[in-house]
Amino acid sequence: MNAEIIAVGSELLLGQIVNTNARFLSEQLAEIGVNVYYHTVVGDNSTRLKDALALAEKRADLIIFTGGLGPTKDDLTKETIANHLETTLEMNDAAFQSIKDYFHKTKRIMTPNNEKQALVLKGSTVLANEKGMAPGMYFSHNGMHYMLLPGPPFEMEPMFEKYGKTAIEKALGRKETIHSRVLRFFGIGEAQLETEIEDIINEQLNPTVAPLASDGEVTLRLTAKHESKEIAGEMLDQMEEKILKILSPYFYGYDDTSLMKELSDRLKEKEITLSVAESLTGGLFQSEFTNISGAGSVLKGGIVCYTNEVKKELLSVSKNTLSIHGAVSEPCAKELAENVRELFKSDIGISFTGAAGPGPHEGMPEGTVWIGIAEKGKPTRTFLLNLAGGRNANRIRTVKYGCYYLLKEVVSI
Amino acid sequence: MNAEIIAVGSELLLGQIVNTNARFLSEQLAEIGVNVYYHTVVGDNSTRLKDALALAEKRADLIIFTGGLGPTKDDLTKETIANHLETTLEMNDAAFQSIKDYFHKTKRIMTPNNEKQALVLKGSTVLANEKGMAPGMYFSHNGMHYMLLPGPPFEMEPMFEKYGKTAIEKALGRKETIHSRVLRFFGIGEAQLETEIEDIINEQLNPTVAPLASDGEVTLRLTAKHESKEIAGEMLDQMEEKILKILSPYFYGYDDTSLMKELSDRLKEKEITLSVAESLTGGLFQSEFTNISGAGSVLKGGIVCYTNEVKKELLSVSKNTLSIHGAVSEPCAKELAENVRELFKSDIGISFTGAAGPGPHEGMPEGTVWIGIAEKGKPTRTFLLNLAGGRNANRIRTVKYGCYYLLKEVVSI
Repeated sequence: MNAEIIAVGSELLLGQIVNTNARFLSEQLAEIGVNVYYHTVVGDNSTRLKDALALAEKRADLIIFTGGLGPTKDDLTKETIANHLETTLEMNDAAFQSIKDYFHKTKRIMTPNNEKQALVLKGSTVLANEKGMAPGMYFSHNGMHYMLLPGPPFEMEPMFEKYGKTAIEKALGRKETIHSRVLRFFGIGEAQLETEIEDIINEQLNPTVAPLASDGEVTLRLTAKHESKEIAGEMLDQMEEKILKILSPYFYGYDDTSLMKELSDRLKEKEITLSVAESLTGGLFQSEFTNISGAGSVLKGGIVCYTNEVKKELLSVSKNTLSIHGAVSEPCAKELAENVRELFKSDIGISFTGAAGPGPHEGMPEGTVWIGIAEKGKPTRTFLLNLAGGRNANRIRTVKYGCYYLLKEVVSI
Repeated sequence: MNAEIIAVGSELLLGQIVNTNARFLSEQLAEIGVNVYYHTVVGDNSTRLKDALALAEKRADLIIFTGGLGPTKDDLTKETIANHLETTLEMNDAAFQSIKDYFHKTKRIMTPNNEKQALVLKGSTVLANEKGMAPGMYFSHNGMHYMLLPGPPFEMEPMFEKYGKTAIEKALGRKETIHSRVLRFFGIGEAQLETEIEDIINEQLNPTVAPLASDGEVTLRLTAKHESKEIAGEMLDQMEEKILKILSPYFYGYDDTSLMKELSDRLKEKEITLSVAESLTGGLFQSEFTNISGAGSVLKGGIVCYTNEVKKELLSVSKNTLSIHGAVSEPCAKELAENVRELFKSDIGISFTGAAGPGPHEGMPEGTVWIGIAEKGKPTRTFLLNLAGGRNANRIRTVKYGCYYLLKEVVSI
C-alpha cells in the first residue's frame, strides 16, 4: 500500500504554520509498513484541491487528508471529495451529539455553522474526535482508500493513533495488530547503547527494537505484531526483560514520561523533601520542577547563587573553599548541597556549580560541572560532568543529570 | 508570479524531519508578493522527482527546490533537473574554492565526492552558501524560473534571504527592493493595538504595516519598497515615528530581541543589580535571565520561595501578612521584593507570587498574580495580573510582565 498525504489550508501556503501533520503521519505509516511517496500541501480552494485529489488517485492507494473539516466557509475538504466521488454528505448523530456535548462542557454557545461539522461522507466509518469537534472519516471506493483527519495536531494525532491506524491495518487485511512500548534511558550514549544490545537489535524481527537519540536521552521503541493483544503484551514484556538485564542502570521510565516527572512522582510517593542551590543552572532545575503541578509538597525551595558573594553569605560556603578550590569544585558543590539542605530544613539538598560557557569560568574549562547531593545521615555525594554542548545545552544537560542522580541515588530506581 | 516549493528528501517522507523550509520560503515569498499554490515533498528518487518537476512546470512559473544538493549518491536534484531540461552540469570554480576553504577551516579531510557539490547547472546564477558547502542556483528556461537551495535550514535560510530573494525580485522586473523592520510591543493585545492604529494600517500601502501576535506579544512588521535603500530607510523611520506616537508605552525593541535580552542589556549598561524572589514562577525568571551570557554582573541571585515556610523564614514575610492577606496578595509581594533586595544587597528586588493553577491557591482564583518591585530610596511598586492561560502559560506570561515592568519602571525605556 502506497500513501499520499494531502494537507489542506492556505495558512500553510502563507507560511503561517508548519506542516507537522505530514511528519507525524509519515512516521506512523512507516511503522505499519505503508510507504509514503508524496506530501502535498494545497490551499482552501476547491478546484486546486480537486486537482490534487485526482492526481493522488493516480499515484497512491491511500490518500490521507488533514485540515479543512471545520465550521467555516473556507473548510471544504469533505465537500470537495463528495463532489469528486459523486457521493453526498449525511448527518452523523453520534458526531452531532459529541459537538453539542463539547459546547456544553466548554460553556460556549453553539452557532448554526457548527452543525456542518457533523456532516460525514455517506457510508464512511466515523473516527471520533476526542479533543475537538470535527469527526474524522475513513472509507474505500473503487479500491482506493480515503481518510479525512482534522487539521489541529492535538486533535489529529490522538484520533489517528486510536482509530485511524486500526482502520488502515484492517484495510490491509492484516489480522495482527501492532503494539508498541518505549523504554527511556539516560546516562548512556546512543552508540554505546546500540553496542551493548547489538545482538538483540540484529536478531529480533518481532518485536522489533528501534533506538532513537534526542536531547541527551536514548529511547528504544519495542514494536510487537500479533493477533492477540495479550500475547503481544507478553512478547513486549519478555523483550523488555532481556534488554533491562543489560541496560537497567540507565533505564528510568516508559513512553512519554520525563526524568523530572519521574523524580517528582517518586519523591512525592516517598514523602521526601528537596531544596536546591543553583549556580550555573540559574534556577532552571527549580523552574522545571515547579512546572509540574503539586511540586509544593516536595520542593521546599532554593537559592540561585550565581555570584560567589551569595555562595559565601547566604549559603555559607567557606572562604577557603572559594579561594583555594574555586566555585567550580567538588568542595564547593558539597558545601552548597549540605548548607542549602540545612537552611531549608529539607531531607535532600542538591547543588549545581560549573562553567556553562561560553569560555572557561575561574580557569575551569567550559562544560565542567559539579553536582552535590546531601542527604540526612549519609555522606554527601558529588558527581563531575564534562559537557560539550554550548551554554544552554550544558545547563539543560546538567539539570537532567541532577534528576538522574537523584533518581538513582536517593530514590533507588 | 506563482510558485511551487518542492522539497526533496526521503527523510521527510519517513517522518524523520519536518518540512520547515516550505514554511520559511512561503512566508518570504508572501512578503514579496509571490503566490504559493502548492508544496510538494518527494523522496530521493529521480523518476518521482522528474514527475513532480514536470507537474510543477504546468502549474507554476517559479519552482523552488530544497534539498538533494549534497555529496552522496542519494543527492540527485540538480542531476535530475539537468536531465529533464536536457542541459549539463559544469564545475563552478568559486563554489569549488569555497568548499576547499570550508574543509580547511573546519580542519576536516575533503573526500572526492565533495567535488560533486561544486557542479552547477550550466548558465545558472550561483547563490553562495555561507554556512555550508552546496551552492544554490537560479536560472530561467523557456519562461520558467528555477531555484535550487540546500536542505539544511541553517544554510538555506540565509542563502535565500541574502541572494535568492533578490534574484526573484530581479526576475519579476522590479527595480525597487524590499526593506523590513519589526517593532515589538508588550502589555497590549493584538485587537487593541490594531484598533489604536487602525487608520495607519488601512491607509498605508508603502510601507505596509502588518501586525502579528504570538506568546503574549504583538509585533508590527513595516515593509518599505523603494529603489534606494536610503529612502526606504527614511520611509521606515517616518512610519515608525507615526506609530510610536500612539503606541510608545508598549514598545520595547526591534527585530529579534526579547524582553529579557533588553532588560539584561539595559541593566548592564546602567550598572543596576537585581535580586529575585520567585514563588509561582519557581525559578523561571532567573533561569531565563541567566540563559543570557554575562548575567552574573547584574543578577546577584534569588530565592525560590515556593512554600510559605520559606517566605516566612528566609524572606521574613510577616506572620500577619500570610495569615490575614495570604501568599497571593499585594502585601506579600511587597515584603518579598523589599526583603530579597536587602538579603542580596542589590539595587532592585523583584518578587512574583500568585496562583499559577490548576485551580485556586489559598482561595485566590487561578491566574491571580502579584509582582513587587523594590528600589533603593523609592516606594515599592506592586502590579496585579489576572491571567487566563493555564499553569505553564501563566508562569511564562508572569515572567514577561516582570521584565516589562522593570524596563518601564526602573530603566524607563
